[in-house]
Amino acid sequence: MTPASESRNTVPRTTVPSMPVPSMPAPPSDLAWLGEHAAARLPREVLLHAHGPTAASLEAEVARLRALAPGSPGSLTLVDLAHARATAPAQEPAQATGHVPAADLEGAPLAELADAGEESFALAATGDRIRVVAGGSRGLRYGFYAALLGLVPADGEEWTLRSPALSIRMLDHWDNMTVHPVMGQVERGYAGGSLFFEDGELREDLTRVEHYARLLAAIGINRVSLNNVNVHAHEATLLTTRRDQVARLAEVFRAQGITVLLSVSFASPVLLGGLGTSDPLDPEVQEWWRRTTADLYAQVPDFGGFVVKADSEGQPGPFAHGRDHADGANVLARALAPHGGEVFWRAFVYDHHQDWRDRTTDRARAAHDHFAPLDGRFDDNAVLQVKHGPMDFQTREPVSPVIAAMPRTRLAVELQVTQEYTGQQKHLCYLAPWWSETLRFPLGPDGAPTVADTAAGLVAVSNVGDDDFWTGHPLAQANLFALGRLAWEPGVSPDRLLEEWIGATFGPDPLVAEVLRDLLAPSWLLYESYTAPLGVGFMVRPGHHYGPDVDGYEYTPWGTYHFADRDGIGVDRTVATGTGFAGQYPEPWASRYESVSTCPDELLLFFHHVPYTHRLHSGKTVIQHIYDSRAEGCERVAELRPRWRQIADRVPAALHDRVDALLVEQERSAEEWRDQLRSYFFRASGIADENGRPIH
Amino acid sequence: MTPASESRNTVPRTTVPSMPVPSMPAPPSDLAWLGEHAAARLPREVLLHAHGPTAASLEAEVARLRALAPGSPGSLTLVDLAHARATAPAQEPAQATGHVPAADLEGAPLAELADAGEESFALAATGDRIRVVAGGSRGLRYGFYAALLGLVPADGEEWTLRSPALSIRMLDHWDNMTVHPVMGQVERGYAGGSLFFEDGELREDLTRVEHYARLLAAIGINRVSLNNVNVHAHEATLLTTRRDQVARLAEVFRAQGITVLLSVSFASPVLLGGLGTSDPLDPEVQEWWRRTTADLYAQVPDFGGFVVKADSEGQPGPFAHGRDHADGANVLARALAPHGGEVFWRAFVYDHHQDWRDRTTDRARAAHDHFAPLDGRFDDNAVLQVKHGPMDFQTREPVSPVIAAMPRTRLAVELQVTQEYTGQQKHLCYLAPWWSETLRFPLGPDGAPTVADTAAGLVAVSNVGDDDFWTGHPLAQANLFALGRLAWEPGVSPDRLLEEWIGATFGPDPLVAEVLRDLLAPSWLLYESYTAPLGVGFMVRPGHHYGPDVDGYEYTPWGTYHFADRDGIGVDRTVATGTGFAGQYPEPWASRYESVSTCPDELLLFFHHVPYTHRLHSGKTVIQHIYDSRAEGCERVAELRPRWRQIADRVPAALHDRVDALLVEQERSAEEWRDQLRSYFFRASGIADENGRPIH
Repeated sequence: MTPASESRNTVPRTTVPSMPVPSMPAPPSDLAWLGEHAAARLPREVLLHAHGPTAASLEAEVARLRALAPGSPGSLTLVDLAHARATAPAQEPAQATGHVPAADLEGAPLAELADAGEESFALAATGDRIRVVAGGSRGLRYGFYAALLGLVPADGEEWTLRSPALSIRMLDHWDNMTVHPVMGQVERGYAGGSLFFEDGELREDLTRVEHYARLLAAIGINRVSLNNVNVHAHEATLLTTRRDQVARLAEVFRAQGITVLLSVSFASPVLLGGLGTSDPLDPEVQEWWRRTTADLYAQVPDFGGFVVKADSEGQPGPFAHGRDHADGANVLARALAPHGGEVFWRAFVYDHHQDWRDRTTDRARAAHDHFAPLDGRFDDNAVLQVKHGPMDFQTREPVSPVIAAMPRTRLAVELQVTQEYTGQQKHLCYLAPWWSETLRFPLGPDGAPTVADTAAGLVAVSNVGDDDFWTGHPLAQANLFALGRLAWEPGVSPDRLLEEWIGATFGPDPLVAEVLRDLLAPSWLLYESYTAPLGVGFMVRPGHHYGPDVDGYEYTPWGTYHFADRDGIGVDRTVATGTGFAGQYPEPWASRYESVSTCPDELLLFFHHVPYTHRLHSGKTVIQHIYDSRAEGCERVAELRPRWRQIADRVPAALHDRVDALLVEQERSAEEWRDQLRSYFFRASGIADENGRPIH
Repeated sequence: MTPASESRNTVPRTTVPSMPVPSMPAPPSDLAWLGEHAAARLPREVLLHAHGPTAASLEAEVARLRALAPGSPGSLTLVDLAHARATAPAQEPAQATGHVPAADLEGAPLAELADAGEESFALAATGDRIRVVAGGSRGLRYGFYAALLGLVPADGEEWTLRSPALSIRMLDHWDNMTVHPVMGQVERGYAGGSLFFEDGELREDLTRVEHYARLLAAIGINRVSLNNVNVHAHEATLLTTRRDQVARLAEVFRAQGITVLLSVSFASPVLLGGLGTSDPLDPEVQEWWRRTTADLYAQVPDFGGFVVKADSEGQPGPFAHGRDHADGANVLARALAPHGGEVFWRAFVYDHHQDWRDRTTDRARAAHDHFAPLDGRFDDNAVLQVKHGPMDFQTREPVSPVIAAMPRTRLAVELQVTQEYTGQQKHLCYLAPWWSETLRFPLGPDGAPTVADTAAGLVAVSNVGDDDFWTGHPLAQANLFALGRLAWEPGVSPDRLLEEWIGATFGPDPLVAEVLRDLLAPSWLLYESYTAPLGVGFMVRPGHHYGPDVDGYEYTPWGTYHFADRDGIGVDRTVATGTGFAGQYPEPWASRYESVSTCPDELLLFFHHVPYTHRLHSGKTVIQHIYDSRAEGCERVAELRPRWRQIADRVPAALHDRVDALLVEQERSAEEWRDQLRSYFFRASGIADENGRPIH
């Protein structure tokens, strides 16, 4: 540890003491990827050339980590160029380095950094010396965490410039302030109550929120929306009478460079303002939004903006006033624009009072039908938040055709880290492979821009609650980690992200790493193998969405059908004979999905209704695939627990026990899926399993 | 009106003033069968020879009725023989009539009355003169209401003696004190919140409860259990710290001759008493029940006793302590015995964690398997409360075999007036025809004792809430009325009961009566015709149980299956090849149900798994029956609303509107049932509707 060579108050070059700050509140017991193993990687010498709040928070973070582990040999130099310039003599304006030693900047791509924006940083590693240079405080923090998490190139002299691929990297919390009688406190939350709220108000003790903010900053998240998109009456008041609670959370997140947003009700002018209408073209309504937004900014100057679920699943919206969704989004966008805020307008609009008897409607078509005609009509600070698939976060869906259809609109792609339809954090399901596939999906012929190229941002529904392990299933932390990293760097491989997460969370033990890789890497495809087959989706228990119920949504108004009968199964979404959904895609996808011969097996039943005897590209019939895949999936699930037990004494005991108990549940549930689907389709088809496995 | 000829305080012969008592609180807007039409039937002259609280409450009731209508020509004389004796000279002990004029008793069967018990009365009608004589206050009240409701024999000199066939005539309220997040305030309640409780405590204003008690007294109910048999933590305290609320309700019901009971948790000694166990053989537990019960009786001297749901659907019970249900019931019975109370022990015990893959278990068998071996082991003041059917209040079930199997046990048969599985008070479903069939069912060859002969009581789950019309669907009042009347007189025809109810509730308008008869009389069979077919049951949405979901419970642990596949449907409950349930019956039923050729059509799928092409006694195949019955049922439902509209200006407007709106919902729901079942079974069977009606 180098002693402080400059006075901290006047000149912000500091080194950080190795003792914990005595007044620091007790940390949560599970520190995820910012615990002892990350701390062990922090070089013993940290040289910080920075000033202001970011410098203070990095100092505090180093102190926190030092208390967990002594660190590794070597040094980490962190240079904020803004600081360098501030301390430079007045006559050296351009590439001034001020008090920063020239060696710390030697060879750094300063010109490129200046162009790359305030979130970027440059990093070089030589021997045990790591250097980070950034053009601003956010970049500096990201550089610090990159070094801490080991996102460092192999030893060499070269600097690498790191910039986020997507400027919007947001987590949406579907937290309620009170416990909703049906949905619980966190809608679709599988990790306990809300991290933020308790008994209807903000928690007194925000220690865990502070650590959560650090965890998010470390993986590059820069925005958090605080409350459920289904805005209930109580939560609606966060916009007005409970603004102070937003301000307090904003302060906690601000300390980690994260801005906060609110989900608001489109009917707020009526609900909260006492107006007679929420019509977006009504001048009084516009004035109400302007004034209310200005009041909020007076209290939270760096507030991020609003998230809106409108005209969707019962939420109010512009349709009631005869307006379209561009009218709706723009009234909020214009209230936010003077303050630099943005509105995130969800494209999840469909008729959830569909008549299952009407085969001409198709929920998959809805977002494109509603929004594609509005391309170009949204203000610059309106971001259309589009679910990655056309349905609703199923285990397998095609990419949403909306993403290719709105070139003149800023789009954010919405993913679900919380595992609503993917095992609810009781089943292992590492989702990065699928997210990666989605982000790299070309929206046209080979070489066409990908989803990641097209999107302005990535938004994801958080999987975190007040659970001791943050995410219910401790290994579901990998999903949160990977989500942040993919938003920054969509091209990085899911396996690489898994390595990063394992190293930071569990340390360098090779057996632990091997077991976790074996458990997590194939877990999404494994989950798919024993649940709804071949892209048909759902088949879950209505309401809570856990466990199998083949006909659960089959005769309901929610628009999610499989049309299984004694002869076959699947949804005809072709242009030729079906709902025409396949035609919403650009080529080559429209043609590829249209034809049963070119449609990928894993999406076959999403696009086509076929007989059970239809032969897949895999060579199996559909019915035999259903039988085999479910049986084999279960056999593989049964192997997980013995494997996990191999590292019983190499990971924290409480964590091991939690995962072990969840693996028991995963086995039970997978068998339920297997037996129920095999029985259902045997009863329907009358075709025996050619492998002779028992059917109940 | 005869002026009072005796001073009210010293000599209780009174006539009743024609003005309402000024301090009477505002009555509910719908007075059900004790409103203006009943008031119009009250003879103008009422002569009351009685004393004490009953006399006072009858006076008040006459006053209340007088305010509604001037009454009919003639007189009603009410004689309580106890009063007659009290006012007789001391030297006339036996058949003393005291101040009661001899003409009022002329020809009355006084000796028979003395034997018939305190609930009996004798009634004679001559011209416009009605005479009632009773041996006690309860009988007097019943006689009064019999006259009021027109339960009077054709004009003649003869006295008829009326005694209740069943001494226990109880309504169970499944009311919670707070709103349960899933079940609402009244579990399986379809008429708003609780009549008794609000915001976790007893209501301040019990005016509606007072009228409810009158309504129940008028139809002969003598016991009311106040709270949900699923006893939650808050409601459990009615037994201890909230006893005062029980006392207040007891007071209201006592004024109408009704005793109150409580549902209690078998785990109360632990939950409320802080003991370490609830083991019924533990002396401390026994002492706790004794002491707690004695404390309750100190506050409510005429308390009726306890209702217990034990070891059922998650409720605690004796099994956890290695004890059986006789042990469990008797510990409570012995605590109650010194005070004259009874324990109602529900026989609804089954494994709700059944594995659908295990075809050897059968929920229908459960009550008989559990309880028949315990016959003779229950104390005299323990009443085994047995659901009328072996499953759970379905639209059609066979009679429970438990009723014939326990000759040495006092049994109460439990019915469900609340329409959980029978349309939830949104569909018309007059249940008296079925209840009547059940009560008259012979438990053996022709001439064997019937269910009504065998049972000591009839218990029914109330369909009443704080709804303006008491029962949500105003016409569902007919079920409550019929239930009470059948408990008193199981042999009376359901059509006759309908006439009684219509007359008392809607008056003498012949068109109104005709329309109501047409709507209600066939409504149970109509409801059956478009819902689950041929006795197979369920096929409802899980949880709330409204609307169709053929496979809703098919792969669940609740033990309710139909086993439909591409070839056939039904549950094989035969001894020969099935679960053996049919063998739990005495002959001739065991043989009749065992054989597919003698099993009644309406129970075919309850007892047998048959191919869709199986031909019913009706001549139709099962599949064509499913198709036709659902389609024809819907056609008939569509006729209801036009019929109802014929009396739009002849019944109260608010009531007409409510029924009209519900008929719209019934039409929609019936179509949903029709379309979903027709589609499901067409998809399964591939057999076309031979009548060519469309299938979606």
